[in-house]
Amino acid sequence: MGPKPSEPAPRSALKARTRTDYKYFLSYRTRWSDNDQYSHVNNAVYYHLFDSVINAYLIAHCGLSPRTSDAIGLVVSSYCHFFSPLSFPDSSVTYEVGVFREGSAEPAAVGGYTHVFVDAVSRKTSRMRDRTREGLQKLFIPSSSESGSKL
Amino acid sequence: MGPKPSEPAPRSALKARTRTDYKYFLSYRTRWSDNDQYSHVNNAVYYHLFDSVINAYLIAHCGLSPRTSDAIGLVVSSYCHFFSPLSFPDSSVTYEVGVFREGSAEPAAVGGYTHVFVDAVSRKTSRMRDRTREGLQKLFIPSSSESGSKL
Amino acid sequence: MGPKPSEPAPRSALKARTRTDYKYFLSYRTRWSDNDQYSHVNNAVYYHLFDSVINAYLIAHCGLSPRTSDAIGLVVSSYCHFFSPLSFPDSSVTYEVGVFREGSAEPAAVGGYTHVFVDAVSRKTSRMRDRTREGLQKLFIPSSSESGSKL
Amino acid sequence: MGPKPSEPAPRSALKARTRTDYKYFLSYRTRWSDNDQYSHVNNAVYYHLFDSVINAYLIAHCGLSPRTSDAIGLVVSSYCHFFSPLSFPDSSVTYEVGVFREGSAEPAAVGGYTHVFVDAVSRKTSRMRDRTREGLQKLFIPSSSESGSKL
Repeated sequence: MGPKPSEPAPRSALKARTRTDYKYFLSYRTRWSDNDQYSHVNNAVYYHLFDSVINAYLIAHCGLSPRTSDAIGLVVSSYCHFFSPLSFPDSSVTYEVGVFREGSAEPAAVGGYTHVFVDAVSRKTSRMRDRTREGLQKLFIPSSSESGSKL
Repeated sequence: MGPKPSEPAPRSALKARTRTDYKYFLSYRTRWSDNDQYSHVNNAVYYHLFDSVINAYLIAHCGLSPRTSDAIGLVVSSYCHFFSPLSFPDSSVTYEVGVFREGSAEPAAVGGYTHVFVDAVSRKTSRMRDRTREGLQKLFIPSSSESGSKL
Repeated sequence: MGPKPSEPAPRSALKARTRTDYKYFLSYRTRWSDNDQYSHVNNAVYYHLFDSVINAYLIAHCGLSPRTSDAIGLVVSSYCHFFSPLSFPDSSVTYEVGVFREGSAEPAAVGGYTHVFVDAVSRKTSRMRDRTREGLQKLFIPSSSESGSKL
Repeated sequence: MGPKPSEPAPRSALKARTRTDYKYFLSYRTRWSDNDQYSHVNNAVYYHLFDSVINAYLIAHCGLSPRTSDAIGLVVSSYCHFFSPLSFPDSSVTYEVGVFREGSAEPAAVGGYTHVFVDAVSRKTSRMRDRTREGLQKLFIPSSSESGSKL
């Protein structure tokens, strides 16, 4: 926290966190639509929870009134590592996604995520299927490929 | 893309992307509820779009059938940088948020985001208010503070 | 509850309900993204809560396991009346919306809602603006117009 | 559309609608998170689409500017009938749900929906399981039971 943006801690450090590493807590009951077709809480829902707990703190302890405050907080970057029940296996793929407004060449946002392929029933890590690998290879852009394949 | 997870490219490299850096495109019309109280597309909605475009590609070009495939892709980490209309100013704060199941000491996920404080009307970067700074300082944990204040 | 679908009670009867009219309760903390641009909980979010409380009951007390049960409940119709802080004023409009799959002439769903126009700040009911009325009149279909204008 | 709120047309009339009954159209691509655990578009998502198409029309053709207009439209009631692939079978149950603010005895909203029980795989209507019926009967309130069981 300070005048410069901080980098997130590395995944291994984040994985070692416990409740005692945090000072402010809110409980949220999950909702039916939080679960996606894979019957687990969808990854994007975690960002809705981040928004909720962070803004709840700003409202309760920092004087924020979203409708009337003359200064508000906007998000410039975000990230999330998911630990349970997953670990990084051999068969993962990292996507990068750019978001462009119609007619604009510069991205409004760039982000992405890393998929690990798992068995649909056991949810244990699984070999990437050939058809998946072949499909993904079509996206591969050799030059400027810092972050893997790009969609 | 490959056997090891890739690191996201640095923010400056991501900001320099253009449409020609990508191979697969889908257009999405925004929805009323995509906009939050600040009348712009909420940050978490970008992850819903990532999910949509990535899974659309997997279904169309990689043989994925979410209901019947024996191997599915689950997300182990995700991130997003927001460029428009924001730049990193002096008055930003980086939060880290842990997600714990009831009764569990180990986090199911850890993530967060960086807020920049802007003028509510002009949306130009703004000095952080004293009350905000004081509230945020209560969250500061001096030791193991790799990623700024923690909620 | 029984072998025939029941009609919802009229709005006036629903408005007279109290907590003692119900037998099962769950508390939900609202989330940042529940609020829309008008800084109140978006109408569609109520249906997410209905889903959550109804399925929570089915899971806890009726043996439902969404992933493995051989019989599941699907929704054939839904409705909601909003009472706070609104009352039906003179300047309301009822929309009907049909949802069609690409290339299909029969609707997958038909529904809609009634808008009341209010002052943006006081949230008190307000005269419908001429431009609004003129725009809405273009949607009016005289024949088979049981439910007012159609979008 | 007019000075009095209109009642929705009966289900049978709504089921007979075709595209030619409507004057304004927008196409929306579905998103990954629109689908719930049952791998179909969740019922609440339809209301998000209603919001999107109705407000898009108000913005494009009725002069609405959500951030600056002095009169805005708020929803006082909404409803939806789902036709595809469902029909009302013998084994349905209608729930009523009241939404109360903490500490308030009067509901902020009352609504609900009708569940039809179907085979999880074929999605054809199915007998209600005994355990489900027994669980639901515990919710039954004999007096003032206009709309079936209440949660």
